[in-house]
Amino acid sequence: MHARNKPLADEVNLEHVAQTTAGFTGADLENLMNEAAISAAKDNRAYVNQDDITKSFIKVGIGTEKKSRIISDKEKKITAYHETGHAILFHLLPDVGPVYTISIIPTGLGAAGYTMPLPEKDEMFMTKSKMLQEIMVSLGGRIAEEIIFGDITTGASSDIKKATQMARRMVTRYGMSENIGVINYDDDDDEVFIGRDLAHAKKYSEEMQGKIDEEVKFIIDDCYGKAKAMILENMDVLHASSELLLQKEKITREEFEALFVQNA
Amino acid sequence: MHARNKPLADEVNLEHVAQTTAGFTGADLENLMNEAAISAAKDNRAYVNQDDITKSFIKVGIGTEKKSRIISDKEKKITAYHETGHAILFHLLPDVGPVYTISIIPTGLGAAGYTMPLPEKDEMFMTKSKMLQEIMVSLGGRIAEEIIFGDITTGASSDIKKATQMARRMVTRYGMSENIGVINYDDDDDEVFIGRDLAHAKKYSEEMQGKIDEEVKFIIDDCYGKAKAMILENMDVLHASSELLLQKEKITREEFEALFVQNA
Amino acid sequence: MHARNKPLADEVNLEHVAQTTAGFTGADLENLMNEAAISAAKDNRAYVNQDDITKSFIKVGIGTEKKSRIISDKEKKITAYHETGHAILFHLLPDVGPVYTISIIPTGLGAAGYTMPLPEKDEMFMTKSKMLQEIMVSLGGRIAEEIIFGDITTGASSDIKKATQMARRMVTRYGMSENIGVINYDDDDDEVFIGRDLAHAKKYSEEMQGKIDEEVKFIIDDCYGKAKAMILENMDVLHASSELLLQKEKITREEFEALFVQNA
Amino acid sequence: MHARNKPLADEVNLEHVAQTTAGFTGADLENLMNEAAISAAKDNRAYVNQDDITKSFIKVGIGTEKKSRIISDKEKKITAYHETGHAILFHLLPDVGPVYTISIIPTGLGAAGYTMPLPEKDEMFMTKSKMLQEIMVSLGGRIAEEIIFGDITTGASSDIKKATQMARRMVTRYGMSENIGVINYDDDDDEVFIGRDLAHAKKYSEEMQGKIDEEVKFIIDDCYGKAKAMILENMDVLHASSELLLQKEKITREEFEALFVQNA
Amino acid sequence: MHARNKPLADEVNLEHVAQTTAGFTGADLENLMNEAAISAAKDNRAYVNQDDITKSFIKVGIGTEKKSRIISDKEKKITAYHETGHAILFHLLPDVGPVYTISIIPTGLGAAGYTMPLPEKDEMFMTKSKMLQEIMVSLGGRIAEEIIFGDITTGASSDIKKATQMARRMVTRYGMSENIGVINYDDDDDEVFIGRDLAHAKKYSEEMQGKIDEEVKFIIDDCYGKAKAMILENMDVLHASSELLLQKEKITREEFEALFVQNA
Amino acid sequence: MHARNKPLADEVNLEHVAQTTAGFTGADLENLMNEAAISAAKDNRAYVNQDDITKSFIKVGIGTEKKSRIISDKEKKITAYHETGHAILFHLLPDVGPVYTISIIPTGLGAAGYTMPLPEKDEMFMTKSKMLQEIMVSLGGRIAEEIIFGDITTGASSDIKKATQMARRMVTRYGMSENIGVINYDDDDDEVFIGRDLAHAKKYSEEMQGKIDEEVKFIIDDCYGKAKAMILENMDVLHASSELLLQKEKITREEFEALFVQNA
Repeated sequence: MHARNKPLADEVNLEHVAQTTAGFTGADLENLMNEAAISAAKDNRAYVNQDDITKSFIKVGIGTEKKSRIISDKEKKITAYHETGHAILFHLLPDVGPVYTISIIPTGLGAAGYTMPLPEKDEMFMTKSKMLQEIMVSLGGRIAEEIIFGDITTGASSDIKKATQMARRMVTRYGMSENIGVINYDDDDDEVFIGRDLAHAKKYSEEMQGKIDEEVKFIIDDCYGKAKAMILENMDVLHASSELLLQKEKITREEFEALFVQNA
Repeated sequence: MHARNKPLADEVNLEHVAQTTAGFTGADLENLMNEAAISAAKDNRAYVNQDDITKSFIKVGIGTEKKSRIISDKEKKITAYHETGHAILFHLLPDVGPVYTISIIPTGLGAAGYTMPLPEKDEMFMTKSKMLQEIMVSLGGRIAEEIIFGDITTGASSDIKKATQMARRMVTRYGMSENIGVINYDDDDDEVFIGRDLAHAKKYSEEMQGKIDEEVKFIIDDCYGKAKAMILENMDVLHASSELLLQKEKITREEFEALFVQNA
Repeated sequence: MHARNKPLADEVNLEHVAQTTAGFTGADLENLMNEAAISAAKDNRAYVNQDDITKSFIKVGIGTEKKSRIISDKEKKITAYHETGHAILFHLLPDVGPVYTISIIPTGLGAAGYTMPLPEKDEMFMTKSKMLQEIMVSLGGRIAEEIIFGDITTGASSDIKKATQMARRMVTRYGMSENIGVINYDDDDDEVFIGRDLAHAKKYSEEMQGKIDEEVKFIIDDCYGKAKAMILENMDVLHASSELLLQKEKITREEFEALFVQNA
Repeated sequence: MHARNKPLADEVNLEHVAQTTAGFTGADLENLMNEAAISAAKDNRAYVNQDDITKSFIKVGIGTEKKSRIISDKEKKITAYHETGHAILFHLLPDVGPVYTISIIPTGLGAAGYTMPLPEKDEMFMTKSKMLQEIMVSLGGRIAEEIIFGDITTGASSDIKKATQMARRMVTRYGMSENIGVINYDDDDDEVFIGRDLAHAKKYSEEMQGKIDEEVKFIIDDCYGKAKAMILENMDVLHASSELLLQKEKITREEFEALFVQNA
Repeated sequence: MHARNKPLADEVNLEHVAQTTAGFTGADLENLMNEAAISAAKDNRAYVNQDDITKSFIKVGIGTEKKSRIISDKEKKITAYHETGHAILFHLLPDVGPVYTISIIPTGLGAAGYTMPLPEKDEMFMTKSKMLQEIMVSLGGRIAEEIIFGDITTGASSDIKKATQMARRMVTRYGMSENIGVINYDDDDDEVFIGRDLAHAKKYSEEMQGKIDEEVKFIIDDCYGKAKAMILENMDVLHASSELLLQKEKITREEFEALFVQNA
Repeated sequence: MHARNKPLADEVNLEHVAQTTAGFTGADLENLMNEAAISAAKDNRAYVNQDDITKSFIKVGIGTEKKSRIISDKEKKITAYHETGHAILFHLLPDVGPVYTISIIPTGLGAAGYTMPLPEKDEMFMTKSKMLQEIMVSLGGRIAEEIIFGDITTGASSDIKKATQMARRMVTRYGMSENIGVINYDDDDDEVFIGRDLAHAKKYSEEMQGKIDEEVKFIIDDCYGKAKAMILENMDVLHASSELLLQKEKITREEFEALFVQNA
């Protein structure tokens, strides 16, 4: 709603913004978009890009970490392991990260914690390898929960959504699945410009949709397996980082990377 | 409608609110939301959370218990067993409850009775185990009806709806089914923020929908079986509590828990 | 439309109201709802319940029986047998009825006649047994036509609709079919409160829909068979009551029940 | 549109009105509905019934027969045989007709001719037999074209639509197909009152829809065969009546029935 | 849009108007409809029929042939053969045509040329034979391209659309396919009058839709084969007419028919 | 939105405009359409055609190449090979191109570079051969990425979309697939004029949709294979042109074509 009144670069992932700002009031969003517009202006750009939004998000959203909220010890522990799961993969995978901060202080946005990578360069496109690594990072939190607690939580829902969306776009928009081919099966984009109703019928068959589903599931399952193997090889770091987080609530890149050296 | 004019935390389950406030007039809802806003303000929060709504609900909704309504003896008896079915599971399952009050006084909301657990801590996420226990509790009323009367009633419809919704979300949103995997198949959430029409086509195939249906059914059937076994092991409490309820119309945590001791 | 401006209890079956008031003018509906509001007020209730509507319906709707309309003898005869079909089942089945009046005077609502049970107590829920009996009663008119005339008429359409709706809800909303399980497959209810568009995709598969269809058909076919057997065992009453109706146009509970004694 | 502002009896078939008034201007419709309201008022009725509309339709619509339009001889001949096809079935079938007028003067409504039965009594319901006869009558025009010319025309499209609609309703609304059963599969009716969007999902499966299709096709094919046999047995009347129509453009009941005597 | 403000006869094919006026500005459409209204008035008709629109179309649309546009020689040659393909079939088939003008001057409507038959009498209905011939004429342009150039162009898209629409209506609206039967499977027409939303579910099954697809394809394929055979038998005329068109840009009925005599 | 207020020729591909102007602000679009209107006026045309838009696009959009943006060396290299992939096919295929400019300077539109062919003549239709060549050109960028880097990027998404759309239209709108036939299966066009809701049901079956999917996939796969073979035969030019682009950022037709001579 608020984003609509400002020119946004094509690259801006509105759905990602929507996910991470759920819980904002209207005023919070207004605030976020103003900060982003200022950031764009500093850069002599007429439009707001993803980077502007990310910066403002940290300023407006996470800046309002709410220490006052009472979190149970069990939740703190789950969050510490969940965030470390993300962080280990950020650290190990070549095209993502490195980690900038890990926190288990609940944010004003309703998240129990966060793992923030260093801001990336403003990239024009992503490679297939990097997309697969992003999916692995997204699944890292859930994997850590599964390894440590056996039981799993609802806390991974936005991670799962993000991983699914990336895998589906690899298959339907970016032609990155050999079985499906270099063909677009993505009904979503560009609709807004033309002003047409979204309620159109699918342009492809159920049979093709079934094949797409298989590909998406294969990508996710494969990333899950590989990411789990990487975390299992770094159990010492997983425990050490989670314990440190429980003590300090927030750790820096240096503190986190030192654990890899200590546990090598 | 009324909820829309106030910032709500992401965790607030609007559908649950809708179910439990069916029968409210516009003024009742207004009242409910005002109470919730006051509760949030006392807590220095800019947004209304589930806890605020629950508290106000008790104040506004159940506070208006209508003793004047004439209920047949048969209905009272069914309600007493139904509510005790919920209550026994609240009591026995580790991650839910304990029971705060059980009542068979019809509420201003059209319910024939209610079982109220102690208000929970404001949790950031739920474990898979707890979700399964919530489903078991929801099915407890129907199970008690089936055991005692053979015949069953329409009174469990909102319980069934809640259990189905939780099971479906476990499978499609929280990646809690191994057969389906850690993939999002949930078209519903986040739509409101983006302002897009809901009438979009499904993003997955009929075949996948069929597999999801199987998983949902498996979860519900499994919870039903386990919950029924637990109630069957506590038939003495089921009878004692239902009889007490028929005498007193409303019993407290202490009275209810005493029955477990007496019937141990 | 008119109902929307007044608080209605959750139990009020708007679709039933819609069916039985088809043919009303706007003023008639206004009138009906005013009568219902008065009835609620007398009872110190802030909302209108089903009972208020039923009472007002009799006052406003059937009160305007139109003797002036010219009905053919054949139609009168069909109507007499059709209504007696309903009435016999009302009389024999334990959880419905007893019959209050049977009439073959066409109503202001376009019905050729009606069978009115005694007003029921204001029940909070229905048992499965009673729902099956209601379905049997609904099918009774059609069954009588089939037995007596061989030929059947369009006059049973709203009966068929009602029976189908009850059977479908037993399966999809009330978890009353063992094959389908205690799962909600009902997309309809509660949508209005949330204000969401109804045009959402189904949440379950075609395969599951097929199973639901089978269950619904099984329930209807089974009720039809049982109801037909009961009427066939009371052919003397069927003929006697229909003949009495053709003479008097309207008969009372006493007159009707006497026929069972005379033909025992 | 115009019909909405006036109370209509439930029996009024709006779709039939829509079909037969296609081509009317807004003013024509206004006119039609005013005539109908006057007709209702004369009868002391507060609502407009089918009979009022039919009478007004003749006054307003067919009353404006346009002799000035130039029709080719071939079209006149086709129309004469087409209308006689309808008329023979009206005459022979026991529950429909008898014929009042047959005309091949094009109407103000764009029809090339018409066969008008005597106005019927205001019936409260139709038997299955009569519905089948109505379907046969509807198909009579097409059958005559096929028999006489080998070639067929687009002129039967509204007849086909009417026959299809009746057959479909027999199966889905009136429970008149044994294979399908006494179950409602009709999503259309009563929607308007509740004010709900029509764009809801189907309440039954593709498999059931397939069975319904088979039944509808069976009914139509069966009626076609029987109606064709009846016309083939009356070829002398078919030729005689068509020739008389080509001479006189319009013939009366007496003239038409005399042909049956002459050709007996 | 513009057509809506004027009463149109039922026969007016709005979709055909839409196809042939694509590229018009609002003012052009206004102009077209005004001319049509004048034409109707001259004829003492209260409504606009197809003939009025066709006449106005020639006046407003084709009257603005734009000689200034630079067309490549290759495009001119393709257009000449394409239009002659249509023209040969108009000439040879008994129920369509004869040709009035053939032109390869691009029109103000974006067409590269046109073949205009003599205006037809205002027919009340079409025979099946004529519909098949119209389909053959529509396919004639594409067939000529295929025969002469091997390669084919996008220029036939509106011809293909028209042929498909006629074939589909033969099957679903006019009952002209023996395999499908005399049944209506056409969801489109008459919706506007009733004011109902178009977004209703289909009234027939996927299986039936598959059968309809087969019939439509059979009709088109069959017409294509027959039309191709007729053009192949008239290759001399095809070449002669195309060459004459390339010289003169526009030829008359006399010039075109003379080629048949010369090449007999 | 902006385009709607101006008459556009039918040929204007709004979706292409939408794709290439994503990232524009409202003012940019206003600017673009004004330039296009001026261009049309100079040509004495009342409507804007594709050529006007292309010219204005270069003026408004690409004219704002943003050298200030910092692009990583890896991205520059990928872009250089991607653009050369397009350019080689433009050069070699007979009915497209030749190349006018190749650039790896990011544009104001968010593209990492562009390959611009010489402006084409204003063609009235396209041949099947040319459409296939356009698809091959579109796939050339992705093919070069795959050959050189093994890894592939998201940068080809609009190329993939364009190729898919052309292939689908060949099959469903232009009758260019022998297996599918000369039949229209395209629900999209002309809807706007009639003002009808787009949310209509498909007019053809799932089975037919499956066949269409197969044809579209066959066309894309076939074009991909042929285009890859052509690039593999010109690896020297691919390397030389990419290196030259990395040095100069932008190269002209003469520079590019010289590389073919040097590497012959």
